[in-house]
Formats: sequence, C-alpha cells, structure tokens
Amino acid sequence: MRRTIFEQEHDDFRSAVRTFVDRVVIPQDELCRTQGEVVRDIWKAAGESGLLGLCVPEEFGGAGVDDYRFNAVLDEELTRAGLAYACALGVHTHVIAPYLVHLTTPAQRKRWLPGFCSGDLIAAVAMTEPSGGSDLAGLTTRAVKQGNEWVINGSKIFITNGASADLIIVAARTEPGSRSKGISLFVVEGDAPGLDRGGRLNKVGQPQGDTAELYFSNVRVPEENVIGELGAGFPAMMKHLAQERLASAVCNIAHSEYVLEQAIAHVKQREAFGAPIAALQHTRFLIADLATETRVARTFVDACISAHLSGDLTAEEAAMAKLKTSEVQATVVDAAVQMNGGMGYMRESRVAQDWMDARVTRIWAGTNEIMREVIGRSMTR
Amino acid sequence: MRRTIFEQEHDDFRSAVRTFVDRVVIPQDELCRTQGEVVRDIWKAAGESGLLGLCVPEEFGGAGVDDYRFNAVLDEELTRAGLAYACALGVHTHVIAPYLVHLTTPAQRKRWLPGFCSGDLIAAVAMTEPSGGSDLAGLTTRAVKQGNEWVINGSKIFITNGASADLIIVAARTEPGSRSKGISLFVVEGDAPGLDRGGRLNKVGQPQGDTAELYFSNVRVPEENVIGELGAGFPAMMKHLAQERLASAVCNIAHSEYVLEQAIAHVKQREAFGAPIAALQHTRFLIADLATETRVARTFVDACISAHLSGDLTAEEAAMAKLKTSEVQATVVDAAVQMNGGMGYMRESRVAQDWMDARVTRIWAGTNEIMREVIGRSMTR
Amino acid sequence: MRRTIFEQEHDDFRSAVRTFVDRVVIPQDELCRTQGEVVRDIWKAAGESGLLGLCVPEEFGGAGVDDYRFNAVLDEELTRAGLAYACALGVHTHVIAPYLVHLTTPAQRKRWLPGFCSGDLIAAVAMTEPSGGSDLAGLTTRAVKQGNEWVINGSKIFITNGASADLIIVAARTEPGSRSKGISLFVVEGDAPGLDRGGRLNKVGQPQGDTAELYFSNVRVPEENVIGELGAGFPAMMKHLAQERLASAVCNIAHSEYVLEQAIAHVKQREAFGAPIAALQHTRFLIADLATETRVARTFVDACISAHLSGDLTAEEAAMAKLKTSEVQATVVDAAVQMNGGMGYMRESRVAQDWMDARVTRIWAGTNEIMREVIGRSMTR
Amino acid sequence: MRRTIFEQEHDDFRSAVRTFVDRVVIPQDELCRTQGEVVRDIWKAAGESGLLGLCVPEEFGGAGVDDYRFNAVLDEELTRAGLAYACALGVHTHVIAPYLVHLTTPAQRKRWLPGFCSGDLIAAVAMTEPSGGSDLAGLTTRAVKQGNEWVINGSKIFITNGASADLIIVAARTEPGSRSKGISLFVVEGDAPGLDRGGRLNKVGQPQGDTAELYFSNVRVPEENVIGELGAGFPAMMKHLAQERLASAVCNIAHSEYVLEQAIAHVKQREAFGAPIAALQHTRFLIADLATETRVARTFVDACISAHLSGDLTAEEAAMAKLKTSEVQATVVDAAVQMNGGMGYMRESRVAQDWMDARVTRIWAGTNEIMREVIGRSMTR
Repeated sequence: MRRTIFEQEHDDFRSAVRTFVDRVVIPQDELCRTQGEVVRDIWKAAGESGLLGLCVPEEFGGAGVDDYRFNAVLDEELTRAGLAYACALGVHTHVIAPYLVHLTTPAQRKRWLPGFCSGDLIAAVAMTEPSGGSDLAGLTTRAVKQGNEWVINGSKIFITNGASADLIIVAARTEPGSRSKGISLFVVEGDAPGLDRGGRLNKVGQPQGDTAELYFSNVRVPEENVIGELGAGFPAMMKHLAQERLASAVCNIAHSEYVLEQAIAHVKQREAFGAPIAALQHTRFLIADLATETRVARTFVDACISAHLSGDLTAEEAAMAKLKTSEVQATVVDAAVQMNGGMGYMRESRVAQDWMDARVTRIWAGTNEIMREVIGRSMTR
Repeated sequence: MRRTIFEQEHDDFRSAVRTFVDRVVIPQDELCRTQGEVVRDIWKAAGESGLLGLCVPEEFGGAGVDDYRFNAVLDEELTRAGLAYACALGVHTHVIAPYLVHLTTPAQRKRWLPGFCSGDLIAAVAMTEPSGGSDLAGLTTRAVKQGNEWVINGSKIFITNGASADLIIVAARTEPGSRSKGISLFVVEGDAPGLDRGGRLNKVGQPQGDTAELYFSNVRVPEENVIGELGAGFPAMMKHLAQERLASAVCNIAHSEYVLEQAIAHVKQREAFGAPIAALQHTRFLIADLATETRVARTFVDACISAHLSGDLTAEEAAMAKLKTSEVQATVVDAAVQMNGGMGYMRESRVAQDWMDARVTRIWAGTNEIMREVIGRSMTR
Repeated sequence: MRRTIFEQEHDDFRSAVRTFVDRVVIPQDELCRTQGEVVRDIWKAAGESGLLGLCVPEEFGGAGVDDYRFNAVLDEELTRAGLAYACALGVHTHVIAPYLVHLTTPAQRKRWLPGFCSGDLIAAVAMTEPSGGSDLAGLTTRAVKQGNEWVINGSKIFITNGASADLIIVAARTEPGSRSKGISLFVVEGDAPGLDRGGRLNKVGQPQGDTAELYFSNVRVPEENVIGELGAGFPAMMKHLAQERLASAVCNIAHSEYVLEQAIAHVKQREAFGAPIAALQHTRFLIADLATETRVARTFVDACISAHLSGDLTAEEAAMAKLKTSEVQATVVDAAVQMNGGMGYMRESRVAQDWMDARVTRIWAGTNEIMREVIGRSMTR
Repeated sequence: MRRTIFEQEHDDFRSAVRTFVDRVVIPQDELCRTQGEVVRDIWKAAGESGLLGLCVPEEFGGAGVDDYRFNAVLDEELTRAGLAYACALGVHTHVIAPYLVHLTTPAQRKRWLPGFCSGDLIAAVAMTEPSGGSDLAGLTTRAVKQGNEWVINGSKIFITNGASADLIIVAARTEPGSRSKGISLFVVEGDAPGLDRGGRLNKVGQPQGDTAELYFSNVRVPEENVIGELGAGFPAMMKHLAQERLASAVCNIAHSEYVLEQAIAHVKQREAFGAPIAALQHTRFLIADLATETRVARTFVDACISAHLSGDLTAEEAAMAKLKTSEVQATVVDAAVQMNGGMGYMRESRVAQDWMDARVTRIWAGTNEIMREVIGRSMTR
C-alpha cells in the first residue's frame, strides 16, 4: 500500500526539503542545541529555499500554493531532523501564515510578509497564559486603547519562537467581561519597549527550539498593528485550530515512523543471548503492534489531509488525528527506548532525544484531554 | 470526512442488501437462533437477490463483478443483523467462490456454480483440524488414491456452515511427509457416505450460524472432485488468505461502528443520578476514545479495500487490518456492555449478543498471535 | 511466599468446604444449569454442613464465628465450582446474614435465623431498581403504612436468589422526598400475595444461579417485618457495602487464580507448530504478566481481609479491591480464552463458561465506575 | 489500612533518615546536579549517621542489623529527595555490602569495611558490559593470573558510582569457555593503574548520581583482592539478585507514592475552566486508577519485604515486584506530567525530573523483559 495523496510536484518538493535538511539543518544541529534555538542561518536558508511562505502570495515573496500537502511534506522531512525544527518552522509557516495572509490589510501584508517569507522576520503567536493552560477563552492579558495606540499588559507562556521572534501575534482582551468575546489580535514587534522575553524555558526535550515566557508591561502598539476585526480574535483562533492540530498530527506520525524505522534497524543488528533481538518472539510481536498502530494512524492522517484539502475536515476529526497520533507516538518512543536498553537512557542516543522530544505532543496544541472533550461532545450531542 | 471508496453502483447495491436484510433476514432471526443455522429460506432468497455469486461469471448465474467493494457492502450490511450472517454468507461468497471460480475446470464450474449462486448448494471449506489450530501446514487428514477415487480419512473442526453445507472443500494431505507441500483440495458433497457432521458446535456467540466438527471415514470422491492441481492446496489456501482476512476486518469494523452507534444512543437517553450518562465526563472521554479508534481503523480498512482492488494489498497489511479491527471491536463491545450496566449482561439485550458474537474474531481467520507473527516477521526480515 | 492470614482452623474449614463442593455441588452442577438455580438440595446440605450461618450465633443454629476469614474460605472454594455458587450462597451468608443478626429484634432472630442457617429459608436482598442502576439513594419503591401493615409497591431488578428466595429484604422509601433519608428495610416472605417474581433473568453467564426481577403490587407486610430503624435503611446498606465489595473481590481473585492455573496447565500440554504453546516466548510473557497481576492483587485482597478483621478497612480500600480484582479477572479470563483458541469459544469448555461468568463482576456490587468515584473522591477531598 | 511490617525501631530510624535527607541531602541537591554525583560530603555525613553499613557487623563500624526493613526505610526516604540518591547509596548499602560481608575473608573485612561504613570508601559493582546488556553469563572481561596478581582487561558500562568509587567489585571471566561458570569477583581500587573511568555517562535523568563506563587495561590486583571463591562469581551474583530487585521495587513504589501525592496536591489546587482540575471526573477517575495501582503494588512490596525477612522470597516474586512496581511507576509519572500540563514539560518542575529519573527503572536491575522470562519460565516449568 503506497501513500496515495501526493502528486509529482509534492515528491519534487520533498526532495528539495530533504536536501535542505541534510545540507543546512543537520550540520547545524549541535549549534542549535547549544544556543537553544533554530539559528538565524537556518531561517534565512529556509527563506531562500522558499520554505517559509508556502501559502503566501507570490507578490509578497511566498510560494503562492494553497495546498496543505506541501506543508505536510515540509513537516515530515523536518521532523526527521528533530521535532523541534518542525515545531519552530511549522508554527511560522502553517500556524501564523494564515493569520498574516487572511486577516491582514494590504498595507500590513506589504509590511510584514516579505520579511516573513525571507526568514528576516521570525514569527510567534502568543495565546497561552500561565494561569490558563488550554482555556483560551479565559485569557487575562489586556489591551487598552489610549489615543491611537493600544497598551498591552499581561504575560504569556510556552511561546514557540518566543525568544527569537521579530513578530509576535498576541491575543489580548479588549473588552473585559464575557469570555470568548472581546479578544483581539495584535502584532507586537520584537523590539517593542516593555516586552520582556523572560528566559528561554528549559524544556525536557526539543532543545533546538526556543520556547519562552513573555511579559508585557505597558507595551504600546499603533492601531495599524491590530490584525483582523476588533473583538474577533477568538473565532479567528478557533478557525485555525483544525489546521494546527492536523499539522501536529502530521509531525507526530512522521516522527513515529522515523523512530520505529530506527528501532527496527536496531533490533535486527543488536544481539543478546547470542542472537539478534529481532529473533525473539516478544520483539517481533512488539514490532508488529507498533507497526500496525503506526500504519493505521498514518492512513488516517493522510485521509485527514485529503479531507482538509477539500474543506471536509471537521474539528473532531482534526482532534482525533492529534489525539491518536500523539498516543501512538508515545507508545512508539517508549518502546524504542526499551528496545535500546541502557543506551536508550543516554542523552547522546537519538532515541533518548526522541523520547524527550515527544512527551510534549500530548500536551501542546490542546491537551489530549481537550481533544477528548471536543470529540466526546460532538459524538454525544 | 466521508468514505471515498464507493461509487453510485455500490450505494445502490447497499440499498438492495439493506432491504434484503430488513425484509428477509431480521424477520427470521429468531428462527435461525432456534435452529442454530441460517435457514435455507434465507439462502434461497439471497440467491434470488443475486448476493451469493458476486464474483461468479454471469453464465453460471453469478453477478460477474470482480469488484471486492460489493463483497464489502454485503458484509457490512449483514453484520448489522448479526455477525453470524456475514460469517455464513461471507464464507460462501468471499472465501469459497474464488476457489470454485479460479481453480476449477469448466466442467466443475458448470456442475457446481449455478447451485452455488442460487442458494441451492451451500458451501463450506474445511481446513482447520482439532489438533492443529492455526497450523495449516501440519494438517493430518489424508486422501489416498484408489483407482479413480480418492479416499479421505480425518477430521475437521470449527467449520462454518459445516452442518448444512452441500459442498465442502476439504484440504487433505495427498503426499505424506513434508509440511506445506502435498496438500490437495477436494469437493466432498454433503450426502457423501462416511461423512459424519458431528453435532453442531455450541458456540459462545453467533447462534444463528452453524459451525460443525466433521469426521471423514473412508469418504470416497471421484477424481473429478479434485480442485486445482494435486499438491497445490497449500499455496492456493495461502493465496486467498489476504482476502479472507480483509473480509474479516470488514465485518469487524462494521460491527464496531454498529455497536458504538447503539452505545452512543444509549448513553444519550439512559439517566443515572439525575442526568443522562452522556453528561458524565468519563462517558464522553470513553466515547471519544472508542470513536477515535473506530474511525481510524475504518479509514485503514477502506484503504486496504482500495489497495486490494488494485492488487497492492500485502499479506502483512491484510494481517494488520484483521488484527487491529478485531482488537478495536473487542474494546468497543466490552465498553458497550459496561455502559449498559446490568442490562448489558442479559442475553435478551443486543449488546450482550454482540459481545458474545465478537469474541471469536480475535481467534478465527488466523489468531491474532498468527497475525503478529506475519507482521513481525515481515517487518524484521 | 505463602498466604499468611489463615490459622489452622481456617485450613480445616477449607478442607470441609472442599469436600462439600466435590461431593455435593459439582455432581449437581448440570442439574443447577438446567434448572437455572442452585437447587434446594445444595442449600440443605450446605445448612447441614454449617456453611450458611457463619456469623449467626450458635443459639440460632449458626456457627457463631465472627471471623470473616471463614467467609473468605467459603467463597474461594465455591468459586472453583463456578462463580454462581459463591454468588448465591455468598449473598445469603455474607451480605444478608449481617442484616438479620445485627438489625433485628430478638423475636425476628428467633423467627428467621434457624431456617436461614438450615437452608430452609433462602434469602435475597432487593435494592437495585430498573431505572436506578447503582444509584441506591434514588430508589422509588414505596412502602406506605396502613394500620399495622406496610404496603409495598414498586419493582426490583438483578436480584440474586430472587426467584427462589423465601425471605427477601426489600429497601423501600417510607418518606417521599429527600434522597438517602427515608429509606427503610422490610422482610417480605416468598409467598406474600402481590409479589410477582417475573421470569428468571437470562444472564450471559452464571447459569447455575437464579437472578430475578421482582414486582411488588400492594404487597402487605406486618410491622414486625421492618428490620432496623425506620428511615435508617440507607446508612445500614452503606455500612455493609465494604464487606460486600470485599466478598466480591475475594471471589474475583480466587476465580482469577483458578482460571490462570487451568490456562497454565493448558499451555504446557497443548502443542502448536510442533511444540507446547508454553515454549513460545509470547505465551511465557503473557503468563508472566497475568501471574504478576494475579499475585499482586491476591496480596492486596489478603491485606484487606486482615484490615477488615481489625476494623481498619476503609470504604475506598474495599472499592479498590473490588475494582482491581475485577479488572484482573477480566484480563485473565479473556487471555485464557485466547490461549485456548477455537475451543475457548465453545460453551462446553470451562474457560468459555468462566469468561461469560466473569463479565458481570465489573458491573455488580457497584459498577467499577462507581468504585472509581468512591476512590477518586476520597483521594482528592 | 496501615503498613504492618514495621516496628518502633524502624519508625525511629525513619525519622533519623528523614532528618538526614532534609538537613544534608536536599540542601546539596543543586550541587550534586552540577557535579553529576552525590558529593562526598553527603557520603561522609551518611557514614556518620550510620546509614552506610546497615548489615555490616558493629566491629567494622556498621550497624550490625541484619534486618532488611532498615534498608527499605533508607531507600524510601532517600527516594523522596530523588531516585538518584537511593540508587547511589542503595547500591553501596544493599547491593555491595552483602558481598563484602559474606564473601570476604576476615582480613578483607578489616581492610575495607570501616571505610565502607564511614563514607570514605564509596563502592561500585561492575557487571554489565557494552555488548551484553542483561546477559551476565556472557560477559567477556577477562582476568588472567600472572604470579600473585590478576591482570584484568575489558570494559563495563552503566556502573552506578563508577566515576567516584574507591572500591569497585568487578566480575571477570577467569576461565574461558563455559558461560556461567568461570566468572570470578575482584575488588579494584579506584586508583589502580590502567583503570580508565571514561566520562560520566550523560543520562536522561538522575543527574545527581554518577554512572560511568569503565575501561580496564592490564589492571593488576593482588590475589588478596579476589572476593569469594574463584569461579563462583556467577552464583554469587545470582544469589544477591533477589535482594537487588526487591530494593529496586522498594524505590519504585516509594517514588510512585511520592509522585502521586504531589500530583493529587496539584490537581486540588490548579484551576482550569474556573474550577480545580480535581473537580473533573476524568481527573478523579485517573487518580482512582493510579491510587489503586500504587496501593496494590505497595501491599505486594511490603509482603515481599516480609517474605525476604523470613527467607521465603522466591526469585520470581522478586522479579514480579520489580516488574510491577516499575510499570506502575511509569504510569504514575507519565500521568503526573500530563496533569501538570505545559509546566510538566519544564525541567525546573520536579515532576519532569521524576519522569526522566524513572525511565530507567524498567531497564536496570534486569530489564522487564528479563523479569518476564524469569517469571514466565518458573510458571510454565
């Protein structure tokens, strides 16, 4: 059974991304780990290779392809270098790009998109708050109008690219009171006075990507930095959730496949008690279960990508994809560590890194408990 | 997300089968339970409706459609009336038909296929033996040539339609010694002297279908009853295994969907502690997990059907489909019983029947342990 | 590691019960299955052997031993003959005896206990109602005072011994309104006019025990049949729940041990592919997991029995014992069926019976969901 | 239900250890993390407090108590500061002490035990090799007799305290050929020429303890450094495995209890969607399952400790304890991370550390796969 969703142009794009990953990303992996962020050089090279603005119109420097399959290919290939790369570039390319393309004015597009596409302007989106977790409707960061400016106060947490971003889309409450109404979106530039990026958060995994806590103390942005309609931030965020969750699922399953592939190679070569581990029935049965779960989930993700292309992907299907793939991934990485024995517990082994990297995928993009609520409610309505 | 594998003609066929199930099968369900078999009247009506010889050429009374999707539709709809119907008619239509169409001589086709298609000749296939379980290569039933006849001795167990069959395809060893070589296939007619059908086996579930133990004491069949080449029985059986396992998966997942649907309807209406059970978070989360597993497995089965159509379905993918769907089914039926509380333990409730019916699907068509061997070996080769 | 909770007298009692089971119960097993109840002869023999009134004072014909370990031994040995025996006699001996001993007047004790101990008066307790499931506080059966009599109306479901009982303790609402207050307990005699026992419920398993739906239409009982204080029925029921759940756990774990023992014997003797199944690593690992779970849960049950003896068993520990053992049991019986292959799906095999018998233990005595509520609330209070 | 295995003296000892942990260990935790080892000051203080030689006779500076319960208390309390402390001190106190006490000559005891008890001589035991994993019988490190000396060559991996140890018990092959025979034990002193400690291994968790790879290049030790009989190393190692696995189980379950306690405190205080997470049914059910598993496993470990005291603990029971507790621990730490949401993925949170610390417990002290072999074989023998 081959994957059936791709055309020749996607396969060509995959080759290009793979080359980029091999020539640009992997050689700088150690550097990214040390610096705790995807280094600027990678962003710039990605921009040059046309990877950062897939859905951005060509007039602004983008690829102008409104075809999510390219995004999926990008994520799949980046994931093989490490989940952190797919996360950092993916937030920029799949999560933020739609905001900047669809909610902005022509002037805003002209102002931000060229840099966004070239890698000069790294983007982040700041929704989650320390007290709120997955409860976006309850956010407490405030924006108050003073003359022609909005004054923003509050704090955000777990912000991917937060430490290095040049453009930060901030969700803030513009009307106190009701929960999901009265939330608006602002672009805060990286050098805005009053923006304190805190320290880089010291995550369990994904050391090559930066994640930050952001503090806003009387940060002032001009009216021109509001994106979308005032008070319409919540539905805008909700609208993009399905694609965000699908993107998350795409990375999860690609990562599972990669880790499983490595594990299979390992058990075929590693010997114990005088024979390859793969000769043990327990190992074969374990591989069989992991391979089945991975293949089944892969098929579902591909079907979701197809459905997304035709506008048929529902919120609960996206939630199912995110839920299922992150659970499969958790099972695969855990089993892979076990199959590696003591070496699987050493940081220098890739499988240990994969295990640490993957723990967050059941938490981010809406915890799996939120996914279950979304699905369960829709099924029992 | 809609299912994408069907065309209009399959939808039309589905309507026809659904009508058949509603008008012919369900009204005789109680009778089938009492008699312990799919009653002859249903077979005849199925024949009249053209359901029994889907892949049989029209000249022999079949539908002449070499498109497995019709088989899938038939199984899906029969399953809603009870797994036993899909099993009884499915063995006949999907498992045995290919033997009679592809391995037979023109004379044999003329002799057997018209009755096979009309419902006058119910078919069974006798492979498994009491001592052997899933180990087909080790079968011990013998066939010895005496003049123009073959004399068969041995016994077979767990034979679907075994008690009512008019044509029984029997796998027997024609050359003692090597395991998988030297096995040949014979058609034994239902009234053959020396054939003792034992009692109907008293199964845990699926009371509407007959399953029998068969004893062969010097059963004589003429040379003309050999099907396929002498000694080529094992590869012939292996060749059809993928479709048999896929058919099993099709029933499993359709059954899971049906049971889940009923369970959801139940929790929306059943109250406990003053509110519908569906209002409890535990119930919603459980439904979410079951729905996710079912949907994901459904997508995989559909992809396998597509692959099977184009000849791309591998043995391990068929094994994955059988393994995964039967595990999902086990989880769903068990949870559905639990959601029904005490009533779920009463035989008159459909969910109890479904639970008992489904227990065998992890055992038959190759146990799930065999599936894991098939998959595990192919992955670690 | 030996079990450490028993003294010599318990071991002696165990021998006596085992003799009773071998000589009296097992020879009549087929008869009990046919009649759908523990036949009266077994009750009488149990009475003669002193098994029915363990905690009943000797003056009333009981054993006068206030030591739950004897009850545990009785259940463990009966379970080996079939869960239904432990259920039928256990409800009588462990669940109902405490009501009749501790809540009754001297006159009531004199009236009922001798027959209760001799097996002449089979007892049942009727709490659960069709609409209420595990929600006892919401019961709707009413008892209204008319002169010196109480008039009872309502219905009860899933009543163990309900069809054969001579004494039925009925929980009924004597004060409309508040939920847990205003519930009282009555003894209704088996021949009371207006008592309709419905049909025996056709359960999935445990065919040797009767379970019935009971209808009360203006059933009149004299004031002397009230047991305990008026309006104090709910706390009385709650008080006995811990012991009831512990008794359930005792049966579950004894049953798991029995089924596992049989499964191990099976895999050591059954061959597949030329060697005993036990030689397959998958089988050994499975047995290892089942044995570990069973042993660990056994140790916990024994510790609960000890704690119960010293009055230290908490409600949530009893709930944990019931929850854990029924989950272990479910895993063990399911795996045992699988290890038996096709024969495990045949009703004549003991393992199939065990599998069907055991399905109810996650439902009765408070569903496992109720157990989780009890435990979860107490841990997060 | 209280734990019943301890006497007053153990409770007093617990208070003393707790004080030690609070006053000595925790204040130096940051230092230990930075240095990657339990700092010498802690070893010395532990020696002064009499914690290092529990089973060592008083004449050599030990506590002279041959009662494993003290060891259990020590591990339980150390675990609360971090698994690494229980591991580092536990290997010294429970694993190595028995070798030095029971296998040594009087002269050896006099030479090593005083420093061992005072904390001046940190001990390690070097069994596992890079190529062998859990397969001890296949070890390839060689010791060859030259005059009065033994010359050791080979390498060892995953050696707890390996970087800081002053005394290293090394298992080496003294007779080439047969697997489990011909292995002997040597004490190699920390400053032995030819001993290269490699780098400290960079583990996923337990940063406060050192684990090293050791290389032996013509390391020479005098005859007086052989411990136990020549060629009897393998049975000696096997003999101590039960206690080692029990010690591992003691830490695992104490750690599970600690992490669960913290998680419960968290869900009672952390709010989401306007109420504490503990108010969500999913959270309560999850806590119920975790608490049940933890409590049940705790009871089993205590029963194993009792059995060990009376010499009744079998090899498979010790394996069950190690297997079950490490699986429970894995479930608990994973769920605890999830309940902490994004903060659970930050290294500064204790739960993230606990999660990383615990991953190794299914691997070390014999992988859980080895445990399943040990148990499975003994059950199906």
